Amino acid sequence: MVCNLSNVAALLWHAYKSLPAPSNQVNWAGFYTLDPLSPPSRPQLILGPFQGKVACQTIAFGRGVCGSAASTQKTQLVPDVDAFPGHIACDGASRSEVVVPIVIENKGVVSIIDVDCAVPGGFDDVDRVWLEKLAELVGKSCDWP
Amino acid sequence: MVCNLSNVAALLWHAYKSLPAPSNQVNWAGFYTLDPLSPPSRPQLILGPFQGKVACQTIAFGRGVCGSAASTQKTQLVPDVDAFPGHIACDGASRSEVVVPIVIENKGVVSIIDVDCAVPGGFDDVDRVWLEKLAELVGKSCDWP
Repeated sequence: MVCNLSNVAALLWHAYKSLPAPSNQVNWAGFYTLDPLSPPSRPQLILGPFQGKVACQTIAFGRGVCGSAASTQKTQLVPDVDAFPGHIACDGASRSEVVVPIVIENKGVVSIIDVDCAVPGGFDDVDRVWLEKLAELVGKSCDWP
Repeated sequence: MVCNLSNVAALLWHAYKSLPAPSNQVNWAGFYTLDPLSPPSRPQLILGPFQGKVACQTIAFGRGVCGSAASTQKTQLVPDVDAFPGHIACDGASRSEVVVPIVIENKGVVSIIDVDCAVPGGFDDVDRVWLEKLAELVGKSCDWP
């Protein structure tokens, strides 16, 4: 799992960097995974492989953009993170964000894909569609704990 | 472990990028860990968290610069990767490399720190000394499988 997520984070990062603005303003791309040590009654995400600056180590389900994607099992497309209630500012440079849950049958949310952008409105439905396809592919191809 | 290695890879990358040349020419910084699925008779490394371009997924102990650091349990400081027998060219841009093993009592090599530079002679004994201190610190502070 870690090996795949590490390479996918690199591919995502360099793919975004190769695109025209605003996509090339992406400043964080990577994964959080379900923390196997968190109790099912209070699940939390733990930082996985990424490219970008140092990030928060753990995020409770329901907290911020990542935690909301995990608890609702729905993609969060946030054009302005400052307007998102309870947004967690890991990197102050982030202005917009898209978070896609990776959901596995019988396991629920095992991970989330998180991409941040340094300008507002960095992501649209094209990002959503393709990141959701990526989430499905990654979900199928990793040995989740 | 993954959470710590992900953030340390980010810290290493951005620390090198903030230094004068040749250190700011670093083009890969991250970890390989002992593959728990590899047999003790034929141990191999598996890709862990990193910053940089997509990398080789697995490396047998003894192969290339990373595999040599793992099998000898000694830092490999390579001023010119093209002169290193059996060098594995993950990113063709890499011209020099330093690899430091993370060795744990009673477990042996659990991981290696790998940093590549896009110019020859990118690393010296200052890098070696501080990366070895980092390896000791990371070794002590992670829950290795």
